[in-house]
Amino acid sequence: MKPYTFENSEALMQRAKKVVPGGIYGHQTPLVLTKGAYPSFFARGQGSHVWDVDGNEYIDFMCSYGPIVLGHRHPKVEEAARAQMELGNCFNAPGPVWVELAEHLVSITPFADWTVFAKNGSDVCTWATEVARQATGRPKIAMCSGAYHGTHAWCTPAPAGVMPEDRANIIYFRFNDLESLRRAIEENSGKVAGVIVSPFKHDAGHDSELPVEGFLAGVRKICDDNGMVLILDDVRAGFRLHMGGSGELFGVRPDLATYCKAIANGYPLAACVGRDSLRQAAQEVFFTGSYFTSAVPMAASLANLKELQASGAIDRMRTIGEKLRAGLLSQARSAGLGVTYSGPPALPYMTFNDDAGHFDRAKVFSGACARAGVYFAPRHNWFISAAHTERDIDDTLNVTEQAFAAVRKQFGA
Amino acid sequence: MKPYTFENSEALMQRAKKVVPGGIYGHQTPLVLTKGAYPSFFARGQGSHVWDVDGNEYIDFMCSYGPIVLGHRHPKVEEAARAQMELGNCFNAPGPVWVELAEHLVSITPFADWTVFAKNGSDVCTWATEVARQATGRPKIAMCSGAYHGTHAWCTPAPAGVMPEDRANIIYFRFNDLESLRRAIEENSGKVAGVIVSPFKHDAGHDSELPVEGFLAGVRKICDDNGMVLILDDVRAGFRLHMGGSGELFGVRPDLATYCKAIANGYPLAACVGRDSLRQAAQEVFFTGSYFTSAVPMAASLANLKELQASGAIDRMRTIGEKLRAGLLSQARSAGLGVTYSGPPALPYMTFNDDAGHFDRAKVFSGACARAGVYFAPRHNWFISAAHTERDIDDTLNVTEQAFAAVRKQFGA
Repeated sequence: MKPYTFENSEALMQRAKKVVPGGIYGHQTPLVLTKGAYPSFFARGQGSHVWDVDGNEYIDFMCSYGPIVLGHRHPKVEEAARAQMELGNCFNAPGPVWVELAEHLVSITPFADWTVFAKNGSDVCTWATEVARQATGRPKIAMCSGAYHGTHAWCTPAPAGVMPEDRANIIYFRFNDLESLRRAIEENSGKVAGVIVSPFKHDAGHDSELPVEGFLAGVRKICDDNGMVLILDDVRAGFRLHMGGSGELFGVRPDLATYCKAIANGYPLAACVGRDSLRQAAQEVFFTGSYFTSAVPMAASLANLKELQASGAIDRMRTIGEKLRAGLLSQARSAGLGVTYSGPPALPYMTFNDDAGHFDRAKVFSGACARAGVYFAPRHNWFISAAHTERDIDDTLNVTEQAFAAVRKQFGA
Repeated sequence: MKPYTFENSEALMQRAKKVVPGGIYGHQTPLVLTKGAYPSFFARGQGSHVWDVDGNEYIDFMCSYGPIVLGHRHPKVEEAARAQMELGNCFNAPGPVWVELAEHLVSITPFADWTVFAKNGSDVCTWATEVARQATGRPKIAMCSGAYHGTHAWCTPAPAGVMPEDRANIIYFRFNDLESLRRAIEENSGKVAGVIVSPFKHDAGHDSELPVEGFLAGVRKICDDNGMVLILDDVRAGFRLHMGGSGELFGVRPDLATYCKAIANGYPLAACVGRDSLRQAAQEVFFTGSYFTSAVPMAASLANLKELQASGAIDRMRTIGEKLRAGLLSQARSAGLGVTYSGPPALPYMTFNDDAGHFDRAKVFSGACARAGVYFAPRHNWFISAAHTERDIDDTLNVTEQAFAAVRKQFGA
């Protein structure tokens, strides 16, 4: 196989650095990757594979950091999007698909009575906190320290440009630690509007943590006992673990749940679903954007959600994710390397022991993978899609065996 | 002509009300329109015309509240979008068009050295204020009372769910009143990071106000004298008044300018362009979203911006807008009705005298227009597109003559 080179990516990056601060910013900045081992720009995608601008091909385990869930350019999603494009996308009001998609989301979500649509995960997470405040007349929102709920000032992980006032109404507790939530509530007695929490802990750069038995149910009970709104931030995990929302997998039903990422297989859409008890408040908190009612992403989403369900994609992603996990853990053991493999099979994350803080081993590992056609990110959880095949996993494991060997060679056992 | 009826819209709205708070929310809620005279859902669009779900056809003077600037489904924009769709849209990193579009925006914007991309006008306006804070190390942002810079808590026009802390760092002045800005700065001496202002005053429900001679230049000087960042919110007006940003038309060059709406003819994209002096701060303020690097809207935007320029669209929109204004003012005069026609010709707004606060005459006028195939909104500025023809304006003026007569009949002269 021709060794991977990145001339075109490099040339584009040099141009990008002149006209974009940092060249590429946000969660897709190359700064979080292995220097010299990854492309910076992509040319195309098909199914579980992507091609960079130098023609290098990858089995894609980041899935655009979540949105691609049926695989790139899934025919049913593309067909639905194209059909709507032939009619138009962005009007003075929504198209009929606004109603159809809202009805569908409500029908598949056991606790939900209504839906709103937006464009970013940040849009819906922030709005949900405002709905909680409006409904309760209370100011504070409890969130887990270190959790990611978007880039808005109240929660951005890199608070440059953020003022103390932006977080004056945020209080903190620890995931899987009900006592810490109880304490936070007590210290702010009568002032807490709601709790925002992800279905499992998936903070970037840390091992993931599934909720321990009773944690999410306990959060639910604390909310009920204190008249607080429970917001489930399902932006990252939604529609990869359960079609009814990831709360169903873990036995909790929130009052509001936020979606983005996998909702429309890469078409720009976010949503918040909620209970009747919050309908009035939801109507009162102003929420809009230039493209919030656009029909193409909604047509894509409806096709995506129906195909996820019809094809048994949730089971498939779990099974394929389990195969990847079994293979990687076996290889790590054979190589004598200590790793932690965390998170649900469809959103896995692997760290190397003694790698905390610097990710030196992870960068060697994922860099070796990328140069051999398997795209993992070293310090962010991965994403399985329903397009990944057994063959993809076999091909991947051929590559990862060499990547573990490279780690072993450089760092020892 | 068959009278306009709205059975399908009504049926969809009944369904929508069950599964979406209010049925349709935000700036496109039917609550701001004339009851019974407008459709709630659209089926398709082509050029300057749109068709609702009952088959009624309209000459569209709202242009999806701004985004449609070359007309619905402009062939060059659609072709560029489709070509990118064939390759894919949303990857682990941007496509080459990220660079091409950033270079293009920098090349057409006289003051700009870099660009960032996002999805909503709110995204870029809020981020720009954070960049100003990060660059200056100061907390406060000055904005015009009543101005719309998006739905985020610091500026939403309907502050349900908003806390006092969200606005603790916002100070206010009046558009076209330099003295009020000077006072606000003095009262917060050394604490003001920047000023955010639109190129003309276009607050919904109010007559628009063009900047008086010296106002924007005066704001620029006050920013320079005080080491403050000048942010031009060009979300609504951008690429309808001048291809270099609306500041060029009014003789001011900001430090940051925000775009959305007309940037991609309806494809979901927002942008902020800025000066080199703010590049470092821009790199520091975390900014990302699931779809920020998606390639299809960027391909559409590049085609849109090039076609706007190549076709002389700015001149055309002004000329067509002047024809509409001349016709409407002449008809109002003939009908003995006092109206105020404000804003630049490409983003006009017409109010009726003695209509302030309730919009009774405006609702009769625009309702009569809508029922006869001309879509204006009664309490929001209108938008001309480059697809509007002389024939459209002639057809429109045939309708508006009757609509003025209806106002005259109901309210007298």
